[in-house]
Amino acid sequence: MKIVIAVLSCWLLAVSTMHGQSAMLDLREGMMIRISEIEIHPEYLQGYKNILREEAGASVRLEPGVIAIFPMYQKANPAEVRILEIYASREAYEAHVKAPHFQKYKTSTLAVVRSLRLVDMEAIDAQTMNTIFRK
Amino acid sequence: MKIVIAVLSCWLLAVSTMHGQSAMLDLREGMMIRISEIEIHPEYLQGYKNILREEAGASVRLEPGVIAIFPMYQKANPAEVRILEIYASREAYEAHVKAPHFQKYKTSTLAVVRSLRLVDMEAIDAQTMNTIFRK
Repeated sequence: MKIVIAVLSCWLLAVSTMHGQSAMLDLREGMMIRISEIEIHPEYLQGYKNILREEAGASVRLEPGVIAIFPMYQKANPAEVRILEIYASREAYEAHVKAPHFQKYKTSTLAVVRSLRLVDMEAIDAQTMNTIFRK
Repeated sequence: MKIVIAVLSCWLLAVSTMHGQSAMLDLREGMMIRISEIEIHPEYLQGYKNILREEAGASVRLEPGVIAIFPMYQKANPAEVRILEIYASREAYEAHVKAPHFQKYKTSTLAVVRSLRLVDMEAIDAQTMNTIFRK
């Protein structure tokens, strides 16, 4: 009887581990990664960065499906902004673009954006992303 | 006497908090952020991605000063690889390029790289990076 219980326990542990892994992989497989390449009219750069900083902070803090919104600019050309964006799923992304903080960002920065290119990316190693990102 | 102790405690707490914050800011201010833009000869892409995957994983796992090495490729053009790299300091970066896993990556991929552009970046909100990245 003890052996039967031991075997069953091992089997349950194995099945639950597999399920855990596959759930994690599914999540990572369904996610959306993007690098937004944004050129800003230089005379409005400081104001733009303030609004973007607020929007990025609110998104990561308030939206469980926003894994990262990480805005940067090129040192050699500060008007060239790049944002690494990672969403847990397409649904998380669609919820994000409807969120009030994103809507505020979008409408208040429209006029100062000189060019915008949304480049969809794929992670080369999705499985180890949780060693880098908190969520 | 109790009041004196209470005031002193508050002052000590305030000073230690300020020091803690400034230490964290100093760390974030000294860090290095880069987006490497790498075009690969398409016929060698799979092999390149395998070597890069191994190198990125080892760097984040083994080097405390490597906050992120996050390799991606453009969905619309898979030979266009982008790597977000974040190092805690210039010293951490210099140690990284001497590490055996980086040396192995560098020497074994040299021939398959068609072009390489190292773009140094600045975070727009360095203070909230620890809400996104684990380290």
